[in-house]
Amino acid sequence: MNYTFASDNCAGTDKRIMKAIEKANEGFTLSYGDDVYTKAAVEAFIKEFGNDIKVYFVYNGTGANTLALGSILKPYQAVITPAFSHISVDETGAPEKYTGCKIITCATETGKIGIEDIRPHLDVLGTVHHSQPKVVSITNPTEEGTLYNTDEIKEICDFSHEHGLYVHMDGARIGNAAAALGKSLKEITADCGVDVLSFGGTKGGMMFGEAVVFFNKELGVDFGYFRKNGTQLHSKMRFISAQFEAYLGDKMYLDNGKHANDMCRYFYEQLKKIEGIEFVHEPQANGIFIKMPKRLAEEALKEYFFYDMDTKEGKVMRLMCSFATKKEDIDDFMRILIQNK
Amino acid sequence: MNYTFASDNCAGTDKRIMKAIEKANEGFTLSYGDDVYTKAAVEAFIKEFGNDIKVYFVYNGTGANTLALGSILKPYQAVITPAFSHISVDETGAPEKYTGCKIITCATETGKIGIEDIRPHLDVLGTVHHSQPKVVSITNPTEEGTLYNTDEIKEICDFSHEHGLYVHMDGARIGNAAAALGKSLKEITADCGVDVLSFGGTKGGMMFGEAVVFFNKELGVDFGYFRKNGTQLHSKMRFISAQFEAYLGDKMYLDNGKHANDMCRYFYEQLKKIEGIEFVHEPQANGIFIKMPKRLAEEALKEYFFYDMDTKEGKVMRLMCSFATKKEDIDDFMRILIQNK
Amino acid sequence: MNYTFASDNCAGTDKRIMKAIEKANEGFTLSYGDDVYTKAAVEAFIKEFGNDIKVYFVYNGTGANTLALGSILKPYQAVITPAFSHISVDETGAPEKYTGCKIITCATETGKIGIEDIRPHLDVLGTVHHSQPKVVSITNPTEEGTLYNTDEIKEICDFSHEHGLYVHMDGARIGNAAAALGKSLKEITADCGVDVLSFGGTKGGMMFGEAVVFFNKELGVDFGYFRKNGTQLHSKMRFISAQFEAYLGDKMYLDNGKHANDMCRYFYEQLKKIEGIEFVHEPQANGIFIKMPKRLAEEALKEYFFYDMDTKEGKVMRLMCSFATKKEDIDDFMRILIQNK
Amino acid sequence: MNYTFASDNCAGTDKRIMKAIEKANEGFTLSYGDDVYTKAAVEAFIKEFGNDIKVYFVYNGTGANTLALGSILKPYQAVITPAFSHISVDETGAPEKYTGCKIITCATETGKIGIEDIRPHLDVLGTVHHSQPKVVSITNPTEEGTLYNTDEIKEICDFSHEHGLYVHMDGARIGNAAAALGKSLKEITADCGVDVLSFGGTKGGMMFGEAVVFFNKELGVDFGYFRKNGTQLHSKMRFISAQFEAYLGDKMYLDNGKHANDMCRYFYEQLKKIEGIEFVHEPQANGIFIKMPKRLAEEALKEYFFYDMDTKEGKVMRLMCSFATKKEDIDDFMRILIQNK
Repeated sequence: MNYTFASDNCAGTDKRIMKAIEKANEGFTLSYGDDVYTKAAVEAFIKEFGNDIKVYFVYNGTGANTLALGSILKPYQAVITPAFSHISVDETGAPEKYTGCKIITCATETGKIGIEDIRPHLDVLGTVHHSQPKVVSITNPTEEGTLYNTDEIKEICDFSHEHGLYVHMDGARIGNAAAALGKSLKEITADCGVDVLSFGGTKGGMMFGEAVVFFNKELGVDFGYFRKNGTQLHSKMRFISAQFEAYLGDKMYLDNGKHANDMCRYFYEQLKKIEGIEFVHEPQANGIFIKMPKRLAEEALKEYFFYDMDTKEGKVMRLMCSFATKKEDIDDFMRILIQNK
Repeated sequence: MNYTFASDNCAGTDKRIMKAIEKANEGFTLSYGDDVYTKAAVEAFIKEFGNDIKVYFVYNGTGANTLALGSILKPYQAVITPAFSHISVDETGAPEKYTGCKIITCATETGKIGIEDIRPHLDVLGTVHHSQPKVVSITNPTEEGTLYNTDEIKEICDFSHEHGLYVHMDGARIGNAAAALGKSLKEITADCGVDVLSFGGTKGGMMFGEAVVFFNKELGVDFGYFRKNGTQLHSKMRFISAQFEAYLGDKMYLDNGKHANDMCRYFYEQLKKIEGIEFVHEPQANGIFIKMPKRLAEEALKEYFFYDMDTKEGKVMRLMCSFATKKEDIDDFMRILIQNK
Repeated sequence: MNYTFASDNCAGTDKRIMKAIEKANEGFTLSYGDDVYTKAAVEAFIKEFGNDIKVYFVYNGTGANTLALGSILKPYQAVITPAFSHISVDETGAPEKYTGCKIITCATETGKIGIEDIRPHLDVLGTVHHSQPKVVSITNPTEEGTLYNTDEIKEICDFSHEHGLYVHMDGARIGNAAAALGKSLKEITADCGVDVLSFGGTKGGMMFGEAVVFFNKELGVDFGYFRKNGTQLHSKMRFISAQFEAYLGDKMYLDNGKHANDMCRYFYEQLKKIEGIEFVHEPQANGIFIKMPKRLAEEALKEYFFYDMDTKEGKVMRLMCSFATKKEDIDDFMRILIQNK
Repeated sequence: MNYTFASDNCAGTDKRIMKAIEKANEGFTLSYGDDVYTKAAVEAFIKEFGNDIKVYFVYNGTGANTLALGSILKPYQAVITPAFSHISVDETGAPEKYTGCKIITCATETGKIGIEDIRPHLDVLGTVHHSQPKVVSITNPTEEGTLYNTDEIKEICDFSHEHGLYVHMDGARIGNAAAALGKSLKEITADCGVDVLSFGGTKGGMMFGEAVVFFNKELGVDFGYFRKNGTQLHSKMRFISAQFEAYLGDKMYLDNGKHANDMCRYFYEQLKKIEGIEFVHEPQANGIFIKMPKRLAEEALKEYFFYDMDTKEGKVMRLMCSFATKKEDIDDFMRILIQNK
């Protein structure tokens, strides 16, 4: 069975990351982040985002999201987020468990929300009987492969701030977003007004490790304690830090994001040629969501594993590209479709 | 500054582990543990512990302890543990936060507890006004470098089971325990009656990754959900699994545990020759706890970083050996003491 | 300002309840429920529901709901409930905070859900990445004044049980349901298969106090510990118990439920005569949900306080009747509408 | 069996409180505290403590303590408290469950702690690996019947504030403290620097209800949300408020506290005459802790229920006086001892 398109975390570790890890495997260093690798990795974040940040390394995306939210929320507060955001449907209640908060979801066709989706949920502000919205959480690119542009992000941030809410961005694939939008990491986050970012490394080619970046520095002053309280502090920290130093320092997030997006675009162009394939959204990053004739799907699934979800509109299939996807993989997948069309 | 003796997590990654990781970095696999590396690693655990286990891989020791406890406790219950256990003083409240439970501590001179320490805390069983003890948690070797032998573990397990309590073992350094006791992993855990074990990998030479092993299989049936709910499920799981396959398959835990213990024993023999050095306990695994004349300590601290804790009996210094400690490192440290004695 | 129709908890305490309290205020008794009043109150529940129950008294409805759910859920599990259920929108996240669980809501026009609303949420069962539905929670009568009949309840219970889920009923106004359905308490709960019931007393005329009744006795064996852990154990328990003894023993729940329903029906008949008033649902218990011309509403609000909610369909007003509502109150309210129509 | 001395919550409700409740049982009012009774009760608190407070009514002492702490603590923080404080041993883990925090206990002979007990626990401040002490919680009078005087309270408050910690006082029997110290409520709390007080009503003669009083107003701004999130908001609030208005307005807390203390003192004088009775502490409020010959205890227990606890020093018996204790009750109890001495 071939897992190339099952998810971007089915890929391995980028060779350059492996090298960085090996290089860091020298002698003894202090644990928990008091080491030169962590210092260098933090510098790399500062170079991208400017001095006015607080950055912390954690193990994974669910940990980054959960603790980013948990460190800024009180249990009577709530998060507003699209219906299919990762924090809402793919983290087995980790955010509810740690924060104690309600997650309020907005229905959305595109995976994206705007201020008109958020606004009605603010009516309860000031009434003790209802969870009080305090954070808007968006994902870019979304779980459905769509993109917020900087105007859209800025509008959400401005609106949220006007109403006393913070904005969290789940950037599990932030490199794909930067590549797709043709903007710097800072331009699509801090400059739009995002308060705190879950910065993804694993899906972009790292072995493990994500970062939580506070642009609203005040919010992040005690995150170090939350990280340990939330079981997300690594002892041999140098092995996360060395990855991040390489991932940011060499703009690997951009290379790898661009490559995955390009492969996705190529895949899209090929799929368009197959009759009967319907695109749920035009792919904007590295994920394709399609409906295809049952017989075609069955043939493809004989060789390739991918996720198909039952939706109100029928079965939807997800095909993901990653830094490791090759043109030949796509051509091979297309071969099956072409042979069976 | 030299960090050789600061902690066993100041060492890097064992070269054999690095090789196993590299070997696993091939092509695409399913994420979250549906892969051949995880299958092989689980087999390696079964080879050590027998078929009657449930084993899950997590990121770190605090995660392993917190979720092992969290998966078997209800919030009105309590854990009984020695006063200086890791779960009580070194995890920033992670167990309380996730479990919601009280941690009841027993004073101890040696880092170890026995049934006479546990018994008085069971008077409250059956009274709704008090947290109900449900788990006894011990660490082997203890945070103070001492060891429970199998009779002691068995006695705690039997007593706990008689009173309806489970036994959790924090095995962050379980390889050192096995080496020091000259017994198999199974003999010092499952065979004594331990219900659930936090199996340490990182301190023994892994880059990241620990395991939770349920010998009481019933207790572990839904741990997979707890792992995700507790933010401890790795997506690119093969990179933890490949480490564990090597760590157990090649008995690396034993080699590395034995080496660290041997170095510690050698260190101890050298230190004994220095007048004015007092041993808090005779070292039984890979940690030395000593009091030394202030001037000596100051000289040592100029070159070597290590932890010194204020205790009622004065400053106590901790010197840890690891798989990576070399005889020359110890000789070099001794040089300072000899020069200044 | 007149608060007669604002909510059924704007009424005071039924005079018969006051008498029961006074009668219990004699001498010294043991606290926390080891007293004759509690024994008698439990007997009264057994008389209604049969021997096969576990019943516990708590302070309030949010406490009853939160702990009923909290005592049977693990944090990776989830509750399925209608979108406007009390546990979802009116408890400021108390259930999420205590249980750590996700609350999954089903859109509904009527306030009621059926198995077709529940079914799609069960697709995730068995997948570790998603909160696992374990409880279906329904309210009878609903927050929108509608009623489930026994067939509907039974269908939900059977379906839930088939899929390994429990059924919780929020019975804040269970007396109104019994009166409206013309069935016994047991017939509309235990006999339908409900596993655990939040039994409301306060809205029906008590001063304070609700009960949690387990029909699935196994689920309730350790609720006494959860009650204390969840801050809902009253020390001078006799003062809740004496109320419940009267409330059940004298079928006050039925009298008061019937009276409130009758007043509501009378109110409905009067309101129907006013042109321009639109009923969101035909009232089935003690609450009326209407839209009325803006001018009429404004005149009414000058003398009477009641809640009006912005909905997609415009402002909806809620008028509640209680055990204390008198025909004259309704006539007086109608006077305003008639004068201004 | 006679329960007079079993606990001060074995007494019923003060007749004056019953009257206040009945008086409040008129017509319809808004629920949840928007009513004239609550306004008047808050005024009564302001009259006692001055304008610079925030006060909230809750159901019980465990609720008051748990939410007072929960509203000011983050989960990585900790509470320092004497070993036998109510929050530590008598609340079944409610504070740990809601706050997620560690409770650090100080051994104490007298039930009281001083700054020398607190100081060693502050060494961990600033280190991410350990729960960070943020609140010192003391009880006055203590669970062991002893008293802090104002100098002692002030010293704890000053020391705590210097180190960035808050002070919580559990005032379950605050009326007894005020009476015993001969000071006003304000003098023994706010004036000493206490930040937040759990103000007890039930043990002093109320039917139900306690208050949380913030003297550090900033800390209390959002307690209303915490109260609902923590299931401690009563709907028919007037019935708590009316009690508090009477309890404070008529200085009932003082009368009743003084009466209980006086009875306790009288009891003590009688007990002193019995040979073989040993006082653990000289009683300073309304509780007596004694050791007595086994035979005497057995005879007493035939007629009177009271709590006897196994301690390292042998069985200790607790005899509590309350607002409802009469001289004749004590004389009757003494009769048994005299007959059997």
